[in-house]
Amino acid sequence: MAVSPSTHPRRLLPLFLGLFQGALLLFFALFVTYDEPSAQAEDTNLVANGVYSTFPFFQDIQVMLVVGLGLLLAFLPHYGFSALTHNFLLLNFSMQWALVLQGLLHHFHHGQVRLDLHKVLISEFAAVTVLISVGAILGRASPCQLLAMATCEIPVYLASEWLIVTCLGVLDVGGTITIHVFSCYFGLGVSKALFRAAKQPLHPKETPTARSDLMSLVGMLILWVFWPSFVAVPCHPGDAQHRAILNTLLAMSASAITTVVASSLLERDGKLSLGHLQNGSLAGGVAIGAVADMAMPPVAALALGSLSAVVCVLGFRFLTPLLGRKLTLHDQCGIHNLHGLPGILGAAASAVAVLVASKSTSGSQSSLSPTGGNASEVLEGQWGGRGAGGQALCQAAGLAVAVGSSLLAGLLTGAALRLPCLAQPPERLCFDDALYFKIQDQAESPGPDSSAEEGALALKEQV
Amino acid sequence: MAVSPSTHPRRLLPLFLGLFQGALLLFFALFVTYDEPSAQAEDTNLVANGVYSTFPFFQDIQVMLVVGLGLLLAFLPHYGFSALTHNFLLLNFSMQWALVLQGLLHHFHHGQVRLDLHKVLISEFAAVTVLISVGAILGRASPCQLLAMATCEIPVYLASEWLIVTCLGVLDVGGTITIHVFSCYFGLGVSKALFRAAKQPLHPKETPTARSDLMSLVGMLILWVFWPSFVAVPCHPGDAQHRAILNTLLAMSASAITTVVASSLLERDGKLSLGHLQNGSLAGGVAIGAVADMAMPPVAALALGSLSAVVCVLGFRFLTPLLGRKLTLHDQCGIHNLHGLPGILGAAASAVAVLVASKSTSGSQSSLSPTGGNASEVLEGQWGGRGAGGQALCQAAGLAVAVGSSLLAGLLTGAALRLPCLAQPPERLCFDDALYFKIQDQAESPGPDSSAEEGALALKEQV
Amino acid sequence: MAVSPSTHPRRLLPLFLGLFQGALLLFFALFVTYDEPSAQAEDTNLVANGVYSTFPFFQDIQVMLVVGLGLLLAFLPHYGFSALTHNFLLLNFSMQWALVLQGLLHHFHHGQVRLDLHKVLISEFAAVTVLISVGAILGRASPCQLLAMATCEIPVYLASEWLIVTCLGVLDVGGTITIHVFSCYFGLGVSKALFRAAKQPLHPKETPTARSDLMSLVGMLILWVFWPSFVAVPCHPGDAQHRAILNTLLAMSASAITTVVASSLLERDGKLSLGHLQNGSLAGGVAIGAVADMAMPPVAALALGSLSAVVCVLGFRFLTPLLGRKLTLHDQCGIHNLHGLPGILGAAASAVAVLVASKSTSGSQSSLSPTGGNASEVLEGQWGGRGAGGQALCQAAGLAVAVGSSLLAGLLTGAALRLPCLAQPPERLCFDDALYFKIQDQAESPGPDSSAEEGALALKEQV
Repeated sequence: MAVSPSTHPRRLLPLFLGLFQGALLLFFALFVTYDEPSAQAEDTNLVANGVYSTFPFFQDIQVMLVVGLGLLLAFLPHYGFSALTHNFLLLNFSMQWALVLQGLLHHFHHGQVRLDLHKVLISEFAAVTVLISVGAILGRASPCQLLAMATCEIPVYLASEWLIVTCLGVLDVGGTITIHVFSCYFGLGVSKALFRAAKQPLHPKETPTARSDLMSLVGMLILWVFWPSFVAVPCHPGDAQHRAILNTLLAMSASAITTVVASSLLERDGKLSLGHLQNGSLAGGVAIGAVADMAMPPVAALALGSLSAVVCVLGFRFLTPLLGRKLTLHDQCGIHNLHGLPGILGAAASAVAVLVASKSTSGSQSSLSPTGGNASEVLEGQWGGRGAGGQALCQAAGLAVAVGSSLLAGLLTGAALRLPCLAQPPERLCFDDALYFKIQDQAESPGPDSSAEEGALALKEQV
Repeated sequence: MAVSPSTHPRRLLPLFLGLFQGALLLFFALFVTYDEPSAQAEDTNLVANGVYSTFPFFQDIQVMLVVGLGLLLAFLPHYGFSALTHNFLLLNFSMQWALVLQGLLHHFHHGQVRLDLHKVLISEFAAVTVLISVGAILGRASPCQLLAMATCEIPVYLASEWLIVTCLGVLDVGGTITIHVFSCYFGLGVSKALFRAAKQPLHPKETPTARSDLMSLVGMLILWVFWPSFVAVPCHPGDAQHRAILNTLLAMSASAITTVVASSLLERDGKLSLGHLQNGSLAGGVAIGAVADMAMPPVAALALGSLSAVVCVLGFRFLTPLLGRKLTLHDQCGIHNLHGLPGILGAAASAVAVLVASKSTSGSQSSLSPTGGNASEVLEGQWGGRGAGGQALCQAAGLAVAVGSSLLAGLLTGAALRLPCLAQPPERLCFDDALYFKIQDQAESPGPDSSAEEGALALKEQV
Repeated sequence: MAVSPSTHPRRLLPLFLGLFQGALLLFFALFVTYDEPSAQAEDTNLVANGVYSTFPFFQDIQVMLVVGLGLLLAFLPHYGFSALTHNFLLLNFSMQWALVLQGLLHHFHHGQVRLDLHKVLISEFAAVTVLISVGAILGRASPCQLLAMATCEIPVYLASEWLIVTCLGVLDVGGTITIHVFSCYFGLGVSKALFRAAKQPLHPKETPTARSDLMSLVGMLILWVFWPSFVAVPCHPGDAQHRAILNTLLAMSASAITTVVASSLLERDGKLSLGHLQNGSLAGGVAIGAVADMAMPPVAALALGSLSAVVCVLGFRFLTPLLGRKLTLHDQCGIHNLHGLPGILGAAASAVAVLVASKSTSGSQSSLSPTGGNASEVLEGQWGGRGAGGQALCQAAGLAVAVGSSLLAGLLTGAALRLPCLAQPPERLCFDDALYFKIQDQAESPGPDSSAEEGALALKEQV
C-alpha cells in the first residue's frame, strides 16, 4: 500500500456524512420539538395507548429492515459486512433525510416541527424504498454512490407518494404501489443508467456459498415472520387491521408453498433453488399490500399470494436472463421479480377488488361490507365519492405514476452516480468487503496486487 | 446426470403440494369468510383490543417456530437448508391443513367458516406437533415423506386434542400433554415403523461441526426467550396469564442452570455437551405447560424446571443409547428426551398440583386460591364438578390417551411412509442438502459418483 | 488424557451451581409467593393491562441480553460457544441471585416475598451489570471465576443503586450511571486485580475472523433495534415513555452515522473498523439513558448520540492502547469505550439538562415543561424540592458514587478471583471453547499436547 496515511484521499464518505449530520443538528435545533405534553390524565392514557398500539409494530419493522433485510442481502460470500453495514447506514441516513424533508414539506406550522413516533414511522417507510432499490446494484456500487442515490430517491418518493395517495386517492395501505413498485423501477433505472450497455460478466465472487445462502435464508424467514406488522401498522385499529393481518398471513403462507412448487417444477431434477425460496416466499407480502385492508373474501388473499409467487419464480427463471440479454439490464438481487412483478400484480388486484366489492355490496348487502351499514355509500365515501370505476382507474393511474416517475428519476440518478468523485469500484474489486473494511483475516483480502488499483481508486475520491 | 430434464420424474412433491393448494383455494372460495365486521364503535375497540392482546404473542410464536426451531434443527452440518426449509414448508402446510380440518369439524355453522386470528393460532399449535415429530427422523426422510406424515398427523392430533381437552376436561394450557407428549410418541412410532429393526450406523455427515452447533445454539436461545409467550397465549388475560408467564420464566431459568450442572457431572472432564445445552435448557418449558396457570407456589415451577432438565440430560446420556440398542429405536434429535420425558413429568406434576391445590384451599383458604372467594368451590367449577381425585385421574387418563393414540397412529403412519413412491433417500445420500437443493458451491455437493444413485432414486418417485 | 473419569476433579462448577439451585429452592419454598390474586373484575383488567404494558418490553430485553449480547460477544473465532453459553448462564444465575437478595432486602414484609413480573424485570437489570463487566476479562476467565464475580457484583450493585437512586435521588431512567458506568468500572477493577501488571501478549486465537465478526455485527444490530425498549420500560406510560423512545431512537440513529464518520476518518485508507461499528453504534443508547425521559429538545438527543459515538471510537483508537501501556489495564471487549466513556458523558449531560430545563421553564414557560402547568414547581417536585443546582450536583455525586464503589469492589473481587480453586485457564488455553465444551469436530480442538496441561488445571479445581 504505497499511499501514506497522511496523504490519504478517501475522505468523501466521512465528509458527506459529517456535513449531513451537522445540517441535521442545525435543522433540529432551529425547528424541531416534541409534541406538546398532554396536560390531563385522559390525554396521558391516549398517548400511552398510542405508544402501545404503534411501538410493537414499529419494533417489528425495525427488526425486518435492520436484521432481516440485512441478512437477506448477505448472500454474496465476501460481501456480508458491506451488505449489513451499508443497509444499516442507508436506513439511518434515509430516515433522517426523510424526517427533514417531511418536516419542511408537511409539518411546517408556526415555525416548529412536532416530532412523534408516527412521523418516525412514516420516515422509516420512505427509507425502505432506498433499501429495496439498492438491490439492483448491490456489490458494484460504492457507499458514496449509495448515499447519493438515497439523497435523490427520498424527495422523489415523497413527491410521488403525495401525488399517488393524497392527490389521486389511491388505496395502498401496505405500500405495494408507493413503496415496492416505485423502488423497484427506481433501482432498475439507476442500474441501467449506471452500467449502460456494459455486459456484466459473472464475477468469481458473485456466486453464493452454502454459508452465505444460509444467512440469506434466515434473513428471508425473519422478513416473512414480521411482514404482517409492516402491512398492518398503517391500518385503523379494529376490523381493518385484523383483516390486514389475516390477509397478509394467508398470502404469505400461500407464497411459501407455491414457491416450492414452482421452483421444483422449473429446476432440473426437481431440486429447489435457494434464490427462488429467498424471494418467492416474500412475493405474497409485496402483492397483498394494496388490498390487505379491503373487504374481500379470504380466498382472494390466498390466490394473490400463490400467483405472485409463481410470477416471481418465473421472473427469475425467464425474465431476468431475457432483460439481461436484450436490454443489458443488470438486477443483482432480482428486485424486479420480488418487488416489480408482484407489485404490479397487487395493483391490478386492487383495481379488481374495488370493482368486485362495489358490485357485491350494491347487489346483496353481503357480509363483505366493512361496516354493515349502507355499504355502497360507505365505500364511495372511502373513495372520495368517485364510484367503483373511477376508483379502479385511480389505482391504475397510481401504478402508472409510480412506474413513470421512478424510472425517469432513477435514470437521471444513475447518470449522476457516474461522477468520478463517487468512486465506483472497478469490476475486479467488486463484491469484496476488503475494499471498505479493515479485515484482519488476511485469507479473505484481495491480496497485495490490488493495492495499486485501490490506491488509484482512492485518489479519484479526493475532494 | 444421465436423466434428461424433459423426462425427469421427480414430480411428486410439486404435484402433491400443487393439488393441495388448489383444494385449499376451492375450500376457501366455497366456505370461508372473515368474521362479521363489527358495527359499533365499541365493537371496534373490542376487536382492536383482541388484536393487541393476541397478535404480539402470535408473532413471538412465529419467530419461535420459523427462526428458532429452524435453527435448532440446523445442527447437521450439510443439512442446514433442508432443516430450515422443510421446517418452514411443513409449518405452512400443516397450518393450512389444520385450518381446513378445523373448519370442517368445529366451525361449520350456516355453511360458512368464519376466520379470525384465534383460529389461525389454534392451527399453528396443531402444526407444532408435526414440527416436533419430524425430529425423530430428521435427515433420513424425503420431503414427500414429511408431507405425508403431516397429512396423517394433523387429523389424529385434532381428534386426540378434542378427546383430551373437551371430553376428558384435562387441564393443559401450554400443551404439555396434547402437543409435546403426543408429538413425541407419534414421531417415535413413525421412526420405529419406518426404519424397523435396521441398526442405523453413524453416518459421516451426522456429526455436528462447530459452525452448525453454533447455529443450533442460537436457535435454542431464541426458543428459550419466546417460550413464555407460547405457554401464556391461551390463558385468560389477567392473573392466570401473569402467573403462566412467571411460572414459565422460573421453570426455564432453573432448567438453564440445572442443565449445566447435569451435563458437567455426566460428561468426561466436566466439559459441557452442546446437545445437552440445546435441549435441556428448554425442558422446563415443556414440563411447565400443564401447570403454568394453576395456583401453585413459585417454588414448584423452579423444582419442575430443574427436574425436567435433569431428566432430559439423563435421557440423552443413558436412555437414548439403551433404546437404540434394545429396541433399535432411532431418535435423531432426541425428541424423547426433550418432549417425551419432560412431558410425562409435567403431566404427573399437574395431577399432583390438582391434589395439593384442593387440599390447601379446603384447609386454609390460603393465598393460593385463584380468586380469593370460596376457593374449593371455584376449583371444582374449573374441574367440571368432579373433585380433586377425579381431576387428577383425568390428567393421568389424558396422558394415557396421548401416548396410546400417538404411538398407534405413528406406527401406522410410519408403515405408510415406506411406500416407494415417497422416495426415502438411501443411507449414503442422507443428511445432505445436495439431494434437494441446487447448490452452486461444488465443494459441498456429494460429488459426481452419486448421480447414478440419485437418478435411480428419482425414477422411483415417478407418479 | 491421563485423568480417569472416576477420579475427575473438575467438579467445582456443578457443585457451586447445584448448591445455589438448592438454596434458591429452599428460599422460594419458605418465603416466595405470587401476588394476591385480584378479586374483582376491575383488578383483573389492571393486571392484564400491566402484563400488556410490561411484557412486550420484557421480551425485547430478553432478546437483547440472550441473543443480541451473546452474539456481540461471539467475535472471538474459537470462543463462540463459551461467549453464548457463559452469557446465558450468568444471566440466569445473576437474575436468580438478584431476586433472592432483593427479596431479602426490600420486600420482606410479613414473612413473604411477593413475586411479580416487575420484580423479575428489576432483577434482570441487575444481571445486566454482570454481563457487561464480563467483557473486560472475556476469554481469559473460567466459568467459576465468572460466577464468583457475579456473586460479588450483584449485592454491590444493589447497594450502589439504592444509594444513587433512592438516597441521592439521581435521575437515571435508562441506567446510564447505575448500570453502565458501574459495571464498566467494576469490570476494569476486576481485570486490573486479576491480571495485575502482566502484559497480555496478543493471543493467536484473539483475532476475529470474517465469520465471527459477522456474528458479532448481527448481535450489535439486534441490540441496536431493541435498545429503545430497554430505556423506555421503567418510564411512566404516557408522555415520558413516548419521549424516552423517541430520544433513544434519535441518539442511536446519530450514533450509527457518526460511528461511520469517525471510524472512516481514523482508520488507514478510510476503511471501516468492525470493532468501531460493533460498539460505536450502541454508544448513543448508553449515553441517552440518564436523560431519555427529561423534557429537552430533540436536538439534544441527536447531539448526545453523535458525541458519544465519537468518544467511543476515539477511545478504541487512542485510550485503550494507552491504558494498556501505562496501566497494564486489560479490557478485552473495550467496555470502557462503550459503557464507561459514553456513560460519563450521559451523566454530564443529565446535569446540564437539569440546569437548562430549570432555566428555560422559569424564564419562558416554554413547551419544554413536562406537564404544561407551573413547570418549575413540577420540576422541583421531581427533584425532591432541591432546586436545579442541587439536582445537578446530585447527578455528579451519583456518578462519583458509581465510579468509586464499583472500582473498589471490582479490585477486591478481582483479587478474590485469583484463588487457585477457581481455575483460571493458563494463557495458551485461553480463548478456546475446547477447554469447556465437548467438541466433536477435532479440527478445532487444541490438539493432544494440551492434555497434560488441562489435566493439571483440572487438578487445581479439586474442592
